[in-house]
Amino acid sequence: MYSIVVENIYMLVIVTLISVLQNAFFALKVEKECRSVNPNPAAFERVSCANRNCMDSYPTFLAVMWCAGLCLSQAPASFAGVIYLVVRQKYFVGYMGQTSQSTPGYLFGKRVLFFLFLMCIVGIFNYLLVRFCSSDYKEYVETITSAASALLLLP
Amino acid sequence: MYSIVVENIYMLVIVTLISVLQNAFFALKVEKECRSVNPNPAAFERVSCANRNCMDSYPTFLAVMWCAGLCLSQAPASFAGVIYLVVRQKYFVGYMGQTSQSTPGYLFGKRVLFFLFLMCIVGIFNYLLVRFCSSDYKEYVETITSAASALLLLP
Amino acid sequence: MYSIVVENIYMLVIVTLISVLQNAFFALKVEKECRSVNPNPAAFERVSCANRNCMDSYPTFLAVMWCAGLCLSQAPASFAGVIYLVVRQKYFVGYMGQTSQSTPGYLFGKRVLFFLFLMCIVGIFNYLLVRFCSSDYKEYVETITSAASALLLLP
Repeated sequence: MYSIVVENIYMLVIVTLISVLQNAFFALKVEKECRSVNPNPAAFERVSCANRNCMDSYPTFLAVMWCAGLCLSQAPASFAGVIYLVVRQKYFVGYMGQTSQSTPGYLFGKRVLFFLFLMCIVGIFNYLLVRFCSSDYKEYVETITSAASALLLLP
Repeated sequence: MYSIVVENIYMLVIVTLISVLQNAFFALKVEKECRSVNPNPAAFERVSCANRNCMDSYPTFLAVMWCAGLCLSQAPASFAGVIYLVVRQKYFVGYMGQTSQSTPGYLFGKRVLFFLFLMCIVGIFNYLLVRFCSSDYKEYVETITSAASALLLLP
Repeated sequence: MYSIVVENIYMLVIVTLISVLQNAFFALKVEKECRSVNPNPAAFERVSCANRNCMDSYPTFLAVMWCAGLCLSQAPASFAGVIYLVVRQKYFVGYMGQTSQSTPGYLFGKRVLFFLFLMCIVGIFNYLLVRFCSSDYKEYVETITSAASALLLLP
């Protein structure tokens, strides 16, 4: 039981661990600004808001990534997860930037989350097909998904 | 392995996907208010606060729903999840309402969360009974739970 | 399938349920301050901020605990989870305290989260060893982890 389970989730676990590291990085930035000897309310407000926006969407991201990984295939889901983390890093850094006066909006990583969402739907749909029509397209779907995940690299 | 796993969680995944859609709806409302050409601080404060309260309890909801689904039975857990989402939608809309001056409180969906919590406890208790007393009441418990979940429909 | 799954996660589920109870306790404190007849903005700000900081790190905690429990062993992970909950309770109470003028920082429970993080890495590493080198150190690792988790009790 043990190794079968880990075999099917280890990539997702690795991406989750990376995201936890990133959360810790964000939290350390907030902590540092919070305990700063020269308090700068504007900077604290900025970093705190960026952190909060990232944390607000974190459970959604985790839920969608794990569902996509469990229902369809872990490799594309983990790949999309890594891309989401890169987007989030850019968002956080962009939010704290001094040069840009206009802060980025509340949402980010919409495309990645949409891709993961589609993966979930395809996985569920495929399961229902297997159950009611006995026709399994899982292998084709996995291949297509892996190929499609490369599209996320487009800027 | 694959289809056994999906068979036991597909309803939970569907409810999770619906909740993700709802999160996206809430986030879009915040985004829209945030980028509005005629900024209205009171309205932004209202929608942002409603979104934050919903997001604060989101991980708790997901954790309880998945635990209840895994430990006991997925159908009543998903049903309770759907009801929670309806309650949350009402809460969010009520928070943004112009007519009501009194905002609803911080908590919502207590009854549904309590029901899911009870399901988890019953599931764990049943597992311990099976392990130590070799008496399995799972089928009875599932029937009772399915019937009891209908009580959540009471206003 | 059912009892095998529950056997491997029931401790994690119990810790999750305790954490949900604690969340409910925090939320009730906020609710009570929110609906207070003699509103005290400073107290509300304090309890709301404490609750928000706890909720911000809650998904991270859940993700790390579950990954550690699934990848390596559930007993040390649950034990660390219980210790995290105790630390969180202390943090929350300390945040609301009247006597201490200096609020605790944004972060808490770093040591416990770091321990769980290490458990995940060891679990993944062990899985990769089993897969590519066919050498399974899981039993030794579990014993060492169980012993090491006692170190978390040190103040």
